[in-house]
Amino acid sequence: MLIHGGVTSAKGFTAWGDHVGFKKRRKDLALIVSEIPANFAATLTTNMTKAAPIKWNQQILDSGEKVKAILVNSGQANSCTGAQGLLNAAVMAEKTAEILQCKPGEIVLASTGLIGPQIPMQQALEGIPKVAKNLRSDAFAGSAAAEAILTTDACTKQCATTFNVSGKQIVVGAMAKGSGMIHPNMATMLSFITTDLNITPALLQKALKQSVAKTYNMISVDGDTSTNDMVTALANGMAGNDEIVEEDHEGYRLFCQALDHVNHYLAKKIASDADGATKKLTVSLTGSACEQDARALARSVVSSNLVKAAMFEAEPNWGRVVVALGSAGVQFDPSAMCIGFASVVGEMTAVEAGEQHPSYSAALAKHILGADEIEIIIDLNGGTHRATAWGCDMRHDSIRKTSPLSAVPTDDATTTPSLESYAEVC
Amino acid sequence: MLIHGGVTSAKGFTAWGDHVGFKKRRKDLALIVSEIPANFAATLTTNMTKAAPIKWNQQILDSGEKVKAILVNSGQANSCTGAQGLLNAAVMAEKTAEILQCKPGEIVLASTGLIGPQIPMQQALEGIPKVAKNLRSDAFAGSAAAEAILTTDACTKQCATTFNVSGKQIVVGAMAKGSGMIHPNMATMLSFITTDLNITPALLQKALKQSVAKTYNMISVDGDTSTNDMVTALANGMAGNDEIVEEDHEGYRLFCQALDHVNHYLAKKIASDADGATKKLTVSLTGSACEQDARALARSVVSSNLVKAAMFEAEPNWGRVVVALGSAGVQFDPSAMCIGFASVVGEMTAVEAGEQHPSYSAALAKHILGADEIEIIIDLNGGTHRATAWGCDMRHDSIRKTSPLSAVPTDDATTTPSLESYAEVC
Repeated sequence: MLIHGGVTSAKGFTAWGDHVGFKKRRKDLALIVSEIPANFAATLTTNMTKAAPIKWNQQILDSGEKVKAILVNSGQANSCTGAQGLLNAAVMAEKTAEILQCKPGEIVLASTGLIGPQIPMQQALEGIPKVAKNLRSDAFAGSAAAEAILTTDACTKQCATTFNVSGKQIVVGAMAKGSGMIHPNMATMLSFITTDLNITPALLQKALKQSVAKTYNMISVDGDTSTNDMVTALANGMAGNDEIVEEDHEGYRLFCQALDHVNHYLAKKIASDADGATKKLTVSLTGSACEQDARALARSVVSSNLVKAAMFEAEPNWGRVVVALGSAGVQFDPSAMCIGFASVVGEMTAVEAGEQHPSYSAALAKHILGADEIEIIIDLNGGTHRATAWGCDMRHDSIRKTSPLSAVPTDDATTTPSLESYAEVC
Repeated sequence: MLIHGGVTSAKGFTAWGDHVGFKKRRKDLALIVSEIPANFAATLTTNMTKAAPIKWNQQILDSGEKVKAILVNSGQANSCTGAQGLLNAAVMAEKTAEILQCKPGEIVLASTGLIGPQIPMQQALEGIPKVAKNLRSDAFAGSAAAEAILTTDACTKQCATTFNVSGKQIVVGAMAKGSGMIHPNMATMLSFITTDLNITPALLQKALKQSVAKTYNMISVDGDTSTNDMVTALANGMAGNDEIVEEDHEGYRLFCQALDHVNHYLAKKIASDADGATKKLTVSLTGSACEQDARALARSVVSSNLVKAAMFEAEPNWGRVVVALGSAGVQFDPSAMCIGFASVVGEMTAVEAGEQHPSYSAALAKHILGADEIEIIIDLNGGTHRATAWGCDMRHDSIRKTSPLSAVPTDDATTTPSLESYAEVC
């Protein structure tokens, strides 16, 4: 069960977010701090070009050391910024470490925003103490941090969940940002998870990795992987449970479940918050020969421009689903596949054993696809593995006339790169 | 040099195209016939789901036999049509063979249109003789055939070229269809090449395959591979040259050049005819460690939704190019890459050695990207291999208000699948 909360919900975590000058008006710097050094796990972008904070964090990850805090700025990505960008990252970590009385190597960094410009260091160095002095552990502080990491997102994304391990209450909280596609700025996906669970770094990393594969890696917004994408987890052990050191520990299973729960929620929220999207799309695939294939196939359908455009128009064009499945680079038997559509309006089979179902009605399908939340159900009848992917439609009509973005002045967009955010907290 | 012409330009080829009832009003059945049986080469879709005509042609290709004709219908794809679809394909080939007095196995088949419905066989069986009786070798007949294979294409796509082998004039002619993305119908890519060159089937296949890799496989319209995609080549030898049996023959080199020429032209025409596109986009990549990597990288950039959306808005967001390159799954050194923009307006360097060029001006970049034809120039400085990819922007504003599609009544779209084409010959 999800509870109201975020990165400050777990014991020993404080946070804050404020406007310090990376963007024009909106909050743009967030800090999450653990009272005691926490075990650190992360999955970092697979893009060949890695932003300075990604390189910085990779070093921390490789060191295996505990960390004290995460500093996140929005507005500039600190990507393609060369040696100066790496230096700026280090200086930001040093400044934060000086205030928190720890080592720079205990400060995880994240940036999101425009690729290219250097971080304005005066704002950074003045901003870090400003944010640090307001660190608090309440929900309001968590929300302030969640707001400060947004770029084109329409709303903050945070949640928490709780479970018990040997009588100790464990909390897992998180905040994320995503969104992208239409707006000319970047679409970095960031997620920060905090927990008071006592668990080894190796198991923390393992749990995070498996959960990311099932959640954030199964959403498609704009189809690209940014230079700054990352998901991190801090576990400070302050719940007081005996350290989880083995995978077959009941606590590990419950933690994985909690992680999945939180990450599913945030991943779906990112998918449905895509710039210009009008519908939520879920692709549920069963009957695959292996889990990896199932994921590739579900992702291929949810990522297909043809499918996305058809869903926008509520066009029951199941042929596009067939095409997307067949383009996934995975072997399966097309003559066994079944495809159906579902929404609050109803459910129907469109394709059975590779052919249009005799009872297929395009009018009914269009009716079902007219809903705001649509599910494409696929059964390959070729195995026992399954996967789910989340995305959105792709609108291709008068976005500028209906989107709130159109109301925002962008007069400085061409000369002064700015990520003055369009975010509203909802 | 390209000459005015098409599939009837080479010696011994006749063609025709007419309306026979697969679509409401437009031409929908084309036939290309070689006076004498021709060597046959083809590259067929890689989609796991293969339409009935694809399976039929694979058998012909596997047999290594010569072929007499190609029958192409638009309106229905004969895909996901099961055993009945395969039977219908065979019956169409038989009917054509009966008229042309050859074996069914000498009739190549192609279909493009809606996935799912069975081919209406009465129209097919009445239509084939109607088209066959008008077969002619003039340019008008070639154009009629080129028109009959269109679906959502805005214009016909055909061209020809000529060269000499040992004093004999050789002609290569072709027609193609493409287009896709926004319109709810499918986006099959078909291309049919005819030549009077005398060449072995093995070398014909080799020449075709290498040319397709550099041309049709380097365009991106909607990002998916249809169940019906194919490129075929017929070579009937009627030019009278001595058979080309070796790759190091000068004639082979000239033929490859001519094929590339014709296919480049048609591929670019397909890319720029994408539904809803407003700009032509060329990605020129140099300095790659190998040709395969170069192609993957150029394709990744030209296929990126983020890049396409930025180009639509003339947003000089070179970060999106960086992201698309880094997402291609290919190793390269991001700190060595250079990225530039060019158009009729001018040329500029945006990124040098992985960072924004000191003289970069977003205003100038926006000016350059405001043109109708844009080039993104990438130098990875990591090798000697190069590749070029072609595509288009992705519009995301009021398409329905400006596109000619909006004028077409679609009242029957939901209940009676129809591909009443929007094509105009231009």
